Amino acid sequence: MLEQFKVPADDQIRVPEQSLRRTVTAIFEKMGETPEDAATGADVLVTTDLRGVETHGVSNLMRAYVDRYASGGMKAQPDWRIVRESPATVTVDADTGLATILGPKMMGMAIDKAREVGIGIVTVHNAGHSGAIGHHAMLAAREDMVGVTMTAGGAAILPTFGAEPRLGTNPIAIAAPARNEAPFLFDVATSAIAGNKTVLARRVGATVEPDWITDLDGNPITDGRPMPGLGEYYMLPLGGTRENGSHKGYGFAMMAEILATLLSGSIPGMLDTARGSSHYFAAYNISAFTDVDQFKDTMDDVLRTLRTTKPAPGFDRVLYPGLSEHEEEQERRANGIPLHREVVEWFQHITAELSLPALETL
Amino acid sequence: MLEQFKVPADDQIRVPEQSLRRTVTAIFEKMGETPEDAATGADVLVTTDLRGVETHGVSNLMRAYVDRYASGGMKAQPDWRIVRESPATVTVDADTGLATILGPKMMGMAIDKAREVGIGIVTVHNAGHSGAIGHHAMLAAREDMVGVTMTAGGAAILPTFGAEPRLGTNPIAIAAPARNEAPFLFDVATSAIAGNKTVLARRVGATVEPDWITDLDGNPITDGRPMPGLGEYYMLPLGGTRENGSHKGYGFAMMAEILATLLSGSIPGMLDTARGSSHYFAAYNISAFTDVDQFKDTMDDVLRTLRTTKPAPGFDRVLYPGLSEHEEEQERRANGIPLHREVVEWFQHITAELSLPALETL
Repeated sequence: MLEQFKVPADDQIRVPEQSLRRTVTAIFEKMGETPEDAATGADVLVTTDLRGVETHGVSNLMRAYVDRYASGGMKAQPDWRIVRESPATVTVDADTGLATILGPKMMGMAIDKAREVGIGIVTVHNAGHSGAIGHHAMLAAREDMVGVTMTAGGAAILPTFGAEPRLGTNPIAIAAPARNEAPFLFDVATSAIAGNKTVLARRVGATVEPDWITDLDGNPITDGRPMPGLGEYYMLPLGGTRENGSHKGYGFAMMAEILATLLSGSIPGMLDTARGSSHYFAAYNISAFTDVDQFKDTMDDVLRTLRTTKPAPGFDRVLYPGLSEHEEEQERRANGIPLHREVVEWFQHITAELSLPALETL
Repeated sequence: MLEQFKVPADDQIRVPEQSLRRTVTAIFEKMGETPEDAATGADVLVTTDLRGVETHGVSNLMRAYVDRYASGGMKAQPDWRIVRESPATVTVDADTGLATILGPKMMGMAIDKAREVGIGIVTVHNAGHSGAIGHHAMLAAREDMVGVTMTAGGAAILPTFGAEPRLGTNPIAIAAPARNEAPFLFDVATSAIAGNKTVLARRVGATVEPDWITDLDGNPITDGRPMPGLGEYYMLPLGGTRENGSHKGYGFAMMAEILATLLSGSIPGMLDTARGSSHYFAAYNISAFTDVDQFKDTMDDVLRTLRTTKPAPGFDRVLYPGLSEHEEEQERRANGIPLHREVVEWFQHITAELSLPALETL
């Protein structure tokens, strides 16, 4: 994550992992989820915070979820059902359930299919937010599979050359196991910046890099101003400008739209903004394709080669997707998760309102 | 394609589609391919030229292939074989065969699997170049499936923050059918520009946009100079800089490396530059997931919505992936394919050398 998005040291309050898990689980239970599902939801969010991916941890998502449960836009204990199935595929109607909690179940079905026939794909429509989709991809990697996840929903991103928003921030993730190196986990929005980063940017006062967003006429904003308020801008696809490859970001967003939304029998946000999100979960059983030990050894060689690559002038080292998040996880497990004081205030407020014990901080 | 890459009008010689097909098929036969395989190879290349994707048509590829056949680096009529198989997957050793010709066979196997179990994935290693991988993805779309293809090979791209090349230009493509709209076909390199565009750029004298390539120390080139010669630069991932999302281009390149190379049991170019390319072919049987008619109707709605989106200031219209290529195809079928005169000269030279009839031009 770029430095400008991080919580300033003066605004940090450290919270122990277990304390955050307890409070988030308790809030999910108050929202009507079962204890088991509540713990799953807390695991997805807190693991993401441990990895330093604050956009998709508790700070942005917990309060958004609480609002959605309260407004009736999202159902606790949804009556999700399989609407079509084949040996390698499952299509699910999520009954407006939160995909943060359903995600591990959906990836579990994909993993079961992959064990049987080599690959399993589960598409899900009529669902709520999924948390960090890389979390679900990692569940496959732990089973000696490659996991791929995608999400599509809403319409906040301009297509290349366009002035009307048509696409969601539509993230794509892939996770693959290694032997001794930290696992590979790539998880990105196909927009120039993730939607939740705009929320972070407003919280920490970060400025906007050129060609991340436009004004409401579709003119790119290039002057380094602070992040405008919601509704005052549109977002650009990865690449920003045509010369820099925004048509590629646009195309990858459409890939998620096709594989998650259309293949689950739903309709994209550009046609109906009231639709819920759609999600895609794929598990590739490595042993169906090749030798698992050889795959993991090669992954180790690849990841070691990447992280020991000579850095370009001005840079300290080369990372690979998942490496700095793995390092952050070790540090945060030991020293607690640094939340913005404004986020801790929200927790103290909501736990009081729900008659729950207050969040314990360090 | 950006204007700067197009063949200047003064250098264009128009060649009828059928004439180009005849000559390219005859050359493939002289290289040792069977008449049927030669016609397949010609179809992949000439269809790509018809669509205006000159990077992956005859101008760059035919002479590269002739060189590879001649040097023994690529085998005509390869003895390719299945090394592992499951109900949804096939892993193939291509015996150094040209994937331009093998591609339709491999996608054909993926389509057969998808008809049986809902999805089919074929991974291929020890292969030659694949032509435009979007061509193979389109074969699935014609069967009411979604086609996804990827390729990985070589090491010409720097990872973000790095000064040593580690990744191929690793393209990713997806094709999906519509009912009345031109089909969706997205096919892009995960590098800032495609490798074959650097060849085009040198031929037509195009300049380099900022953050497409670096000098040999890893410093980005931002001064709009002409494309340097091979070996005088490294390429950057899609995004160019970290702020503009180069870590996302890098990650998508790794996605292709994992799904094509590692899942086919091979070793990436960064570990062994002498390895052939690896390829990935996926077919999603739409009817396994949802209703095919509904899928196509929704695709029509989506594609029409995209192409009728209000343009941003300074732009004429909004495209979607595959639209301008579809329009170009109608024009070129009618009026011939505009080749650079230098490319026509090469054809006249090679047909003379191989005792073939000369290429007929308009």
